Amino acid sequence: MIVSIIGSGNVATHLAKALKTAHVQVLNVWSNRFENAQALAVQVNANAIAELTDFASDKSDIILIAVKDDAIGSVVEKLHGYRGIIAHTSGSAPLAVLSNFENFGVFYPLQTFSKHKEVDFNVVPLCLEANNTATLAQLKSLAGLLTRKQSEVDSEQRKILHLAAVFACNFPNYLYGIAQQLLAKHQLDFDLIRPLIDETANKVQNDLPVNVQTGPAVRNDEQTLLKHEGLLAQHPEWLTIYKLLSEQIKKG
Amino acid sequence: MIVSIIGSGNVATHLAKALKTAHVQVLNVWSNRFENAQALAVQVNANAIAELTDFASDKSDIILIAVKDDAIGSVVEKLHGYRGIIAHTSGSAPLAVLSNFENFGVFYPLQTFSKHKEVDFNVVPLCLEANNTATLAQLKSLAGLLTRKQSEVDSEQRKILHLAAVFACNFPNYLYGIAQQLLAKHQLDFDLIRPLIDETANKVQNDLPVNVQTGPAVRNDEQTLLKHEGLLAQHPEWLTIYKLLSEQIKKG
Repeated sequence: MIVSIIGSGNVATHLAKALKTAHVQVLNVWSNRFENAQALAVQVNANAIAELTDFASDKSDIILIAVKDDAIGSVVEKLHGYRGIIAHTSGSAPLAVLSNFENFGVFYPLQTFSKHKEVDFNVVPLCLEANNTATLAQLKSLAGLLTRKQSEVDSEQRKILHLAAVFACNFPNYLYGIAQQLLAKHQLDFDLIRPLIDETANKVQNDLPVNVQTGPAVRNDEQTLLKHEGLLAQHPEWLTIYKLLSEQIKKG
Repeated sequence: MIVSIIGSGNVATHLAKALKTAHVQVLNVWSNRFENAQALAVQVNANAIAELTDFASDKSDIILIAVKDDAIGSVVEKLHGYRGIIAHTSGSAPLAVLSNFENFGVFYPLQTFSKHKEVDFNVVPLCLEANNTATLAQLKSLAGLLTRKQSEVDSEQRKILHLAAVFACNFPNYLYGIAQQLLAKHQLDFDLIRPLIDETANKVQNDLPVNVQTGPAVRNDEQTLLKHEGLLAQHPEWLTIYKLLSEQIKKG
């Protein structure tokens, strides 16, 4: 299978590298900044493409679009004439955004990607959708080369997954940040709390969160809750978060 | 060094087992339910003690108190006459709660302990405090047998650590629970999002949370935020959390 990549951000980069690792040829790479396309292309032995319209004659089996959601529409317009499968990698864009093509789908890796951190793609769930069974089969084959975890997920479900990811990833990370700042304000190293963060995520790998909830709110420890609220008096915004989440946890 | 344990809950159990693994003799174990003391004692080759007053003649070097915060006071009263070091393991009780003794301290493991999950104590930070240098030295020696990570933390700092732990552990776990329930309501398996939870915690092991924040709020993606709010219309309490945390993240 031969794949081309449109985009050069975190998702595009991690996908392209994972493809190379899986011995899938990455043929062409495009980015709205040509030097970014070049930088990624050189890492995966691909060609950097300057004009989107050149993809009309692209020889890849699949083009993966990994650009910002609001750029998908304008990118897609210019790919007119391409004959292979075209798939986007977005958690929230519907499948239908690609409906001007004959064979199209979604290839959504449910993971948080950082520029400077390698990801073990082997355990990244790939959520797949396509407009026909032959296209789905092709996307499944490609996914199977990258990961042990693939699922068929329709556009409605994918919206929920994307929302759930905010609760499971973006919000917890923000709360880690509050913890870190509280420690820093009291000359305490974030290292003290890193193992706790790690273990908290670890506990739900084999159990449901509701079964492993700990802390003062779940045991209705009003004395500790009041002490904590007192400590947050200087930080009204963190206090609001503390009260809201504690109330919810108390309700169970 | 010889240690006795008062308590039989998660902290007491994990500590006692870690001591045994480190070849530290656990002499006596007490619990307010004698059968719980017996159950723990048999796991670590210790004696189960029925009466707290029997600790007056206890031959251990250190007694570790691992009971609920509001029970520490009543337990401590009955240990009158004990000559060794007495230390509690609480994140929020002050050192002074033990001030009726000659040598006392705090031996606080900053971790979340579950009944059915082993913990690698070697990476659990132990936060230590004592009323004199000789006692601190003894607690440090004991901590050194259990973990690579020990810190001197005074009672004021320990309060902050305990509060930070709520933001770093209890609240993220609650948010994992919302994600899980959202998925379940749409026939999606929690397994789809477990790798994301794992990677989110993993990312801050070598970076600060503020440097790796992702998601629609941090990139001011109003369109996605509105879509998500729409999806939460049936869940007003989750919607309130979504809006509050997104607003905070947008402020940066």
